[in-house]
Amino acid sequence: MPVNLSEPKQSDLLPVAGIQLGISSAGIKIVGRPDLVLIQLDEGTVTSAVYTKNAFCAAPVTLAKQHQKQAMPRYLLINSGNANAGTGEQGLVAANLCCQAIAELTDVTNHSVLPFSTGVIGQALPVEKITQVLPDAFSKLASDNWFAAAHAIMTTDTVAKAFSRQLEIDGKTITVTGIAKGSGMIRPDMATMLSYIATDASIEQSVLDAMLFNAIEQSFNRITVDGDTSTNDACVLMATGKAGNTAITDLDSVDAQRVYQVIAQISQQLAHAIVRDGEGATKFIEIDVIQGKDTEECRQVAYTIAHSPLVKTALFASDPNWGRILAAVGRSGINDFDLSKVSIFLGNICIVDGGQPAKEYTEEQGQQVMSQDEITIKVELGRGNAQDTVWTCDFSYDYVKINAEYRT
Amino acid sequence: MPVNLSEPKQSDLLPVAGIQLGISSAGIKIVGRPDLVLIQLDEGTVTSAVYTKNAFCAAPVTLAKQHQKQAMPRYLLINSGNANAGTGEQGLVAANLCCQAIAELTDVTNHSVLPFSTGVIGQALPVEKITQVLPDAFSKLASDNWFAAAHAIMTTDTVAKAFSRQLEIDGKTITVTGIAKGSGMIRPDMATMLSYIATDASIEQSVLDAMLFNAIEQSFNRITVDGDTSTNDACVLMATGKAGNTAITDLDSVDAQRVYQVIAQISQQLAHAIVRDGEGATKFIEIDVIQGKDTEECRQVAYTIAHSPLVKTALFASDPNWGRILAAVGRSGINDFDLSKVSIFLGNICIVDGGQPAKEYTEEQGQQVMSQDEITIKVELGRGNAQDTVWTCDFSYDYVKINAEYRT
Repeated sequence: MPVNLSEPKQSDLLPVAGIQLGISSAGIKIVGRPDLVLIQLDEGTVTSAVYTKNAFCAAPVTLAKQHQKQAMPRYLLINSGNANAGTGEQGLVAANLCCQAIAELTDVTNHSVLPFSTGVIGQALPVEKITQVLPDAFSKLASDNWFAAAHAIMTTDTVAKAFSRQLEIDGKTITVTGIAKGSGMIRPDMATMLSYIATDASIEQSVLDAMLFNAIEQSFNRITVDGDTSTNDACVLMATGKAGNTAITDLDSVDAQRVYQVIAQISQQLAHAIVRDGEGATKFIEIDVIQGKDTEECRQVAYTIAHSPLVKTALFASDPNWGRILAAVGRSGINDFDLSKVSIFLGNICIVDGGQPAKEYTEEQGQQVMSQDEITIKVELGRGNAQDTVWTCDFSYDYVKINAEYRT
Repeated sequence: MPVNLSEPKQSDLLPVAGIQLGISSAGIKIVGRPDLVLIQLDEGTVTSAVYTKNAFCAAPVTLAKQHQKQAMPRYLLINSGNANAGTGEQGLVAANLCCQAIAELTDVTNHSVLPFSTGVIGQALPVEKITQVLPDAFSKLASDNWFAAAHAIMTTDTVAKAFSRQLEIDGKTITVTGIAKGSGMIRPDMATMLSYIATDASIEQSVLDAMLFNAIEQSFNRITVDGDTSTNDACVLMATGKAGNTAITDLDSVDAQRVYQVIAQISQQLAHAIVRDGEGATKFIEIDVIQGKDTEECRQVAYTIAHSPLVKTALFASDPNWGRILAAVGRSGINDFDLSKVSIFLGNICIVDGGQPAKEYTEEQGQQVMSQDEITIKVELGRGNAQDTVWTCDFSYDYVKINAEYRT
């Protein structure tokens, strides 16, 4: 059960002019399950993308990066059930065959197709199964298929992740719609995830790139489920320009910032949704580290807490075992750490005050916070003005179960 | 059930001349359970100790470090059931009251006592319970109490860890006996553990310090269960000089190296025992990283694999999901990583060859290795001659269970 996250409603997901999606069932892992998404971008669509930093990136990631340099993307092809990762040269050939198949069915070159895969690592991509159903995917292209697409890209996700928002600029209505999938192997740079966010706003390439970079830094790059970075992560932001606004060419302009805020909100909603549906998650945890010398050390402390299996199992057990949080802060590797300036809060409850157990603290207070399903842990470092926030979930029996049985 | 590790036999543990141990039950966490160990060192015993690098170190660690500078240790006092960590000034007062109580019962100063605690963090140490049973511990001082001591320092350990060895130098028989406790919150610098190793050899302070440092680097600092570094870790090496050998004053001498090898072996046996009895462990994993540019990058790759919850759950499930190992290697953050030179072996089976899936590899081969309870993962980086080894265990339902229910 995801934490305070329910299925999106079909009716809440708004079409984005210039984008059509076709879903089909290639039977990659499970026969009959929708596992293939074709996204068609109208000519003129500007696309920005960020990929995994894992040195062993998957074949489709390698190919998508190449293709993006060679042509304006016109199609995204996404399959679930097989990651086409750890598949060597064969994997590249397989991914390219899929792109080639789309080129043959259309008037674009294979360079105009970006391939994406998610699922089991190290198994050959069943190219024929995919190419066989491409005509079906084409025949189903429609602008209101975001809901179905959000479902088709799921792997161990238990609910689909999809959000839409609108704003007005230039007297024109701008729509932003995004989908994402998680839900294990989630950690920054990137989280293990695929995400596709589209808008009909007209935005210049360099501005779109900056918007995507900034949005990711406040969303997908600040979540963690298990500290594992996937070989396949990708986040794509598309701007079709169909809304009719004057093209946005300056990131600092009012219009750019208004559009950016909506893109950032959608990114953060999707990122939080991934954590809320983290494998085995029963709680949604926000870790705020403030008063650091710089953002980096705040992030370091936050991730040390967020990755501690002992903290995560205590959160699962609703056990206010704050000693484990304290121990994690203590081992986070910050230089010249003055413990006498550190305070730690569970929700609004001060548990450590100036490096000492807080005098007023009672176990009952801690218990009350820990029994909630949304918990904020705040750490004051007392050495500067920087801050950072990371979101994570707890660590339950089900995490082990899901990951021990994933391939069986 | 620990992995291929059984209880030590009382008869296998050899007394060390100059050392006596007294065990008592203070009822710190469970009434009637032996939870207090007093170790008495004969005058002239040389003692070396290494402590946790966690910035939030526990009160007894702070005090033990101070005391060691002020006097030659004559007593070690160890309690289980309460870590006296995160207890602020009160914790220091409590630890010192225990040392003071020993001073009052003997002719030594409180500075000659080193206090150690392990157990729950953040609860006040019940000083009176401890001081009340000190006379009982003194009355039980005996040289053959290593077996009982190994049991009394246990927390979530399921079996005691204790080993003895002998060698001969100068025509004198030298004995080395060591005990340790784990078993969660285990990761380098230090592993979460307490360990006490004693020998009757005569060894000069600087040589003993070097021996302890080196031994730890090949044992306790190369194991990990969950990546959490405790607030209380300590490893103490004592040399009583009662064996009658000529004092060892040069680490590079033949005699020194022979004694060192035995101390290193005992350290490694104890360290492995901690992993074999890691919380919820069902498998013992050795991770060898070879052909690195330097030891540090080898260690970095090894720990990234060893800390990956996805690798650890796959090991638990006996699932040869080598893609997760590959993904961990890929995200380990090494500079200028040339994947085409990387090979990965599961046991003797090559699974990745020159960055590509090994041609001969079959899932059956992988399955056969993974179904064993002792598994070696070897990674060849193909960029130098350095190597390092880390030992860890898998990640099971029971890890979550043990840590979710620890305080209940």
